[in-house]
Amino acid sequence: VTLSLRLTLEYDGEAFAGWQRQDGRARTVQGELETALARVTGERVAVVAAGRTDAGVHAEGQVVSLALEAPRDPAALARALNGVLPGDVAVRDARAAPAGFNARRDALSKWYRYDIWNGPLRSPLRRRRALCLQRPLDLPALRRAAQACLGRHDFASFQAAGSSVRQTVRTLSRVDLEGETGGALALQVEGDGFLRHMVRVLVGTLVAVGSGRWPPEAMHAILAARERRAAGPTAPAHALTLVAVRYASEPEAAQLSIGRSSSSA
Amino acid sequence: VTLSLRLTLEYDGEAFAGWQRQDGRARTVQGELETALARVTGERVAVVAAGRTDAGVHAEGQVVSLALEAPRDPAALARALNGVLPGDVAVRDARAAPAGFNARRDALSKWYRYDIWNGPLRSPLRRRRALCLQRPLDLPALRRAAQACLGRHDFASFQAAGSSVRQTVRTLSRVDLEGETGGALALQVEGDGFLRHMVRVLVGTLVAVGSGRWPPEAMHAILAARERRAAGPTAPAHALTLVAVRYASEPEAAQLSIGRSSSSA
Repeated sequence: VTLSLRLTLEYDGEAFAGWQRQDGRARTVQGELETALARVTGERVAVVAAGRTDAGVHAEGQVVSLALEAPRDPAALARALNGVLPGDVAVRDARAAPAGFNARRDALSKWYRYDIWNGPLRSPLRRRRALCLQRPLDLPALRRAAQACLGRHDFASFQAAGSSVRQTVRTLSRVDLEGETGGALALQVEGDGFLRHMVRVLVGTLVAVGSGRWPPEAMHAILAARERRAAGPTAPAHALTLVAVRYASEPEAAQLSIGRSSSSA
Repeated sequence: VTLSLRLTLEYDGEAFAGWQRQDGRARTVQGELETALARVTGERVAVVAAGRTDAGVHAEGQVVSLALEAPRDPAALARALNGVLPGDVAVRDARAAPAGFNARRDALSKWYRYDIWNGPLRSPLRRRRALCLQRPLDLPALRRAAQACLGRHDFASFQAAGSSVRQTVRTLSRVDLEGETGGALALQVEGDGFLRHMVRVLVGTLVAVGSGRWPPEAMHAILAARERRAAGPTAPAHALTLVAVRYASEPEAAQLSIGRSSSSA
């Protein structure tokens, strides 16, 4: 008998070499979570994440699937994991999932946010989480360019150079820039899947449009080119956050709120 | 001829041993600013801050006064300073001030914010800027206790032990807790002056009330006691931010917005 679980994680990506466990000494979110699971459950557990975030990328709602041999109360497991995980990663939610649940394969969409500080002077309190651009961006132009990426496209031009992924068609259901001139901006991007560095290359390209380097209409030619060098630079990782992941059937019935009782694992 | 200036600073307090310059190797905001001023102007300038923030305390709007021998465009000076200041401190605004302007003595009020994360699970992305309290606070009780501190009182009970300040009567014009149960809370405190650690002891005492240790009415006896041990613990510094400082005559006429032109100092 195994128990399928779905965990939602929050992490500050600054001190992590990304999600994916690596050989050697790199500190990764997957590595910390699997170590904590081994300590708490005594089982060697392999976890699967919805999005394999890069080094420096944050998460407010990364989703992870795993299966345990021994039954456990999800809420008690979450509290126990939070007791041993380091300060920069925590379980926000834990619930039972349908047998065979796979956080990556079963995800319908992932939602990322990219934060930009576009005030005229740099902002020390925002510098760890936002890209600081002091020159004012042309927001109407940037928004028209964002609009051009909406829907189903071949995003090969927005994939990190050297990627081996062949099927590069993805569908973006949301590419919105929130905020106003001279202040905090947030690009909200939701899609059914993302190529390596895709959000960051998209941001770098949109910023190039907003800076007047290309007109908004250039997005069509950039998409059509299907090569990395047609797009703009890769925006830095520290301003990117995986906000949430959506699934077809939210396991509402199985939801176990993280109680405040002192029952322990 | 000297030029009186008023600078508004933003800083991330995490890596500073507070505002005030110290002998030896401690890194302070005052020390970084005076070093930057010397580099940019060639003058040895002593600066005065409205609030001498403790180690770890942040500022969104610290105000600083200084006088220069040689005339300078305030906006150009701000840009030049931001070019040499380290990433965790920046000038947000610079303008000419009336002769003899003293940021500390002339301040009418200072406004501080203390951030609390009161969700049931700890939050890695909030941990550097908020006090994380997982047990739900009794917000109505906490708000009644906050109300009791409003107005003119002797705050001797809320002063760091060992302080030598004798005149301990201060007036608080605002003590509001924003936010809702289970989430982000912000205590907004504005007053005509603050004793050493006053906001942090106030927060520690209000949290004690919100945790059920004392009833809200205890605030009257705590104020009347006039001794530090009557109040609650000193809340940690990393969640405190100096938001803004108010003055009688805002030098609107002399305001020089920080332009985006490339004119340099």
